[in-house]
Amino acid sequence: VTRPGAVRPEEMRRHNLSLVLGEIHLHGAQSRAELTAVLGLNRSTIGALVSDLVDLGLVAEHLPAQRIRAGRPSHVVAPRGDGPYVLAVEVAVGRVLSAAVGLGGEILAQRETRLTTRSRGPKSVVKIIAADASWLATQIPLNSVRVGVGVSVPGLVRESDGFVNQAPNLGWRKVEFGALLSTALDETDVYIGNDGDLGAIAEHRRGAGRRFEHLVYVNGSVGVGAGIISNGRPVRGAGGYAGEIGHIMLNPDGPSCHCGSTGCVESYVGESALLVAAGASATHSSDAVAEVFSRVRAGDQQACDAVETVAVWLGRALAGVINVFNPQAVIVGGSLAEVMRLGAATVEAELDRRAMAAARSDVVILLSGLDSSSSLVGAAEVAFQPLLSAPDMAQLAAAN
Amino acid sequence: VTRPGAVRPEEMRRHNLSLVLGEIHLHGAQSRAELTAVLGLNRSTIGALVSDLVDLGLVAEHLPAQRIRAGRPSHVVAPRGDGPYVLAVEVAVGRVLSAAVGLGGEILAQRETRLTTRSRGPKSVVKIIAADASWLATQIPLNSVRVGVGVSVPGLVRESDGFVNQAPNLGWRKVEFGALLSTALDETDVYIGNDGDLGAIAEHRRGAGRRFEHLVYVNGSVGVGAGIISNGRPVRGAGGYAGEIGHIMLNPDGPSCHCGSTGCVESYVGESALLVAAGASATHSSDAVAEVFSRVRAGDQQACDAVETVAVWLGRALAGVINVFNPQAVIVGGSLAEVMRLGAATVEAELDRRAMAAARSDVVILLSGLDSSSSLVGAAEVAFQPLLSAPDMAQLAAAN
Repeated sequence: VTRPGAVRPEEMRRHNLSLVLGEIHLHGAQSRAELTAVLGLNRSTIGALVSDLVDLGLVAEHLPAQRIRAGRPSHVVAPRGDGPYVLAVEVAVGRVLSAAVGLGGEILAQRETRLTTRSRGPKSVVKIIAADASWLATQIPLNSVRVGVGVSVPGLVRESDGFVNQAPNLGWRKVEFGALLSTALDETDVYIGNDGDLGAIAEHRRGAGRRFEHLVYVNGSVGVGAGIISNGRPVRGAGGYAGEIGHIMLNPDGPSCHCGSTGCVESYVGESALLVAAGASATHSSDAVAEVFSRVRAGDQQACDAVETVAVWLGRALAGVINVFNPQAVIVGGSLAEVMRLGAATVEAELDRRAMAAARSDVVILLSGLDSSSSLVGAAEVAFQPLLSAPDMAQLAAAN
Repeated sequence: VTRPGAVRPEEMRRHNLSLVLGEIHLHGAQSRAELTAVLGLNRSTIGALVSDLVDLGLVAEHLPAQRIRAGRPSHVVAPRGDGPYVLAVEVAVGRVLSAAVGLGGEILAQRETRLTTRSRGPKSVVKIIAADASWLATQIPLNSVRVGVGVSVPGLVRESDGFVNQAPNLGWRKVEFGALLSTALDETDVYIGNDGDLGAIAEHRRGAGRRFEHLVYVNGSVGVGAGIISNGRPVRGAGGYAGEIGHIMLNPDGPSCHCGSTGCVESYVGESALLVAAGASATHSSDAVAEVFSRVRAGDQQACDAVETVAVWLGRALAGVINVFNPQAVIVGGSLAEVMRLGAATVEAELDRRAMAAARSDVVILLSGLDSSSSLVGAAEVAFQPLLSAPDMAQLAAAN
């Protein structure tokens, strides 16, 4: 067995290239002087690293438009306009959203396809994504090269190969989704991730969780899942299935769940529970859910009570999450964000009662900072990861 | 802000020294040839690093007793017999156990003091530990230098300074335990940790969890807590309070808990619940708990039913833990190990029913590999951490 971790000199350059590119990707255009200060490397090292990144076709340098101080101006380093891009995709119960995302996180082009019960199967979704990929390739600068693919799926995804063990609300079971998509796109590295896990990464890097190193992102719509960041790193578990907070038992005598257990969090705070409690149509749709929230704003008592009940159970679920993870922030997204908005006092009261005082006082509950695009943004981030980790391995048309 | 992570040449040597010392600490005496193979560094680099560690007074080299192959024998590198040691302490409800532990994890000497309700206060415990420290110093080789102190406490410990927010079963609230102990021992760096967190580290490094990078150690006696390892690293949360699985709500209509919530895991699987269900004395003692287990082995029906009930609830609690963390192993310690031993089929049946299939198939439930000393072993490991991270900073009598 070879232990990882021994550092050899040739790895230092890659590591430092990765630091500089990561800084520009995450925080945007900045001067060499800023990079020098922020990264704690000396001026000449930064100069050499930036030159390497320019040669690799990843960034471009320009003089600042305005000179704000006397002396020689520091070059501004920015992602190259026709630099590499990734294909980021969010597969949800009702739609496929595909986007071409450039270094720096800019969405260059995107396309949305509605899903019906008939078009929701894995093969159909793969076809949609392949068509999106071809179309998006015509929408971006001629020199741009695709360097990765990231796809968010609302289900249990094996991290190693994108095998979807189960995506109950899509009706998928044991689908070789990573392999299917890899073939369809003619791309070796396709990263498939769980929507909660990717949402957590997105909130941590670019959303409401930027200031925090310990956070839980709770994504609640039809299903309820979570993504966990501990010490700045995702907690994914052995197979990539961690974060299934929707199936924590809150009551052994509660309703039966499709997972085989009873009294699951999802049975109490998922959209179906909300619709039933509000006396709305039993057939689920995002319009029906939106209608419940409208009724609350209009003062409809049954809708208010329904949201209140969901808020109580949400608080009970989050108390457990807080006791187990002691996060700095719990970030709520999906339709649960609306429950949190309308029922914040109720949720907080349950937390006061049920979370341990020490962990309770460390945590804030926040709404998603990326509206409904957390999972898409997360998919783009993981797709860029190989390039960001080893910029010197970039094989870009522009660099040839 | 300076981003951490930029690697400078001078940090490489420290990093590699740390790798070699860590390998010897964890896996014991081994030849230079083995170190070369395992660490993936070349022979001359290993030679230089070992020489440095010898000069630092941390390891010693000798020729192997038997030559098993022709050719020049490879020197065996071992922790130095009179090398550095740490003071490791386990504070439990009924006792203080203090030990001097050498590099390599060997317990050089130890002393146990029983605690009563009267001697359980923080000041008294600090006095006991200070006396133990003095006595232990007389029991180890003359040249040995103490390089760290690690203490396990059954409570909510703030990681940064060893402030004990709450240790309900000791009756402690908001105790500056780290500061008190630091003064009493005249030692700047005293590491105080939660018993579950330290137990998890110990099981991962030296116990039942050695083969795993994702594990949860569940420590159940009077209280119920857990320590979590994800991707080989402890998950401690923002303040160090993570892992409080004892206070996940399993039933909103369940019994009131001292934490303010209802239906907590601890109310169902803690030792008090077992004693009540078994019709045993309401006054808690470890003898009373042992008596219940004896009655089960003798076939006493009420005791069997009590363990069975606790096993059902343990399964329900662990199902949630498995859904949330997707660990490779859940390691059960404390008196819950005995519940697991006697009620394994019941626990596993609850897991089959309530854990998600994907996570369920990844996990094994194991008993602690360190008997009742997980927390003590973990305390020693964290006490050695500063030395292991920066062996070149060692200030040892032997090296002066």
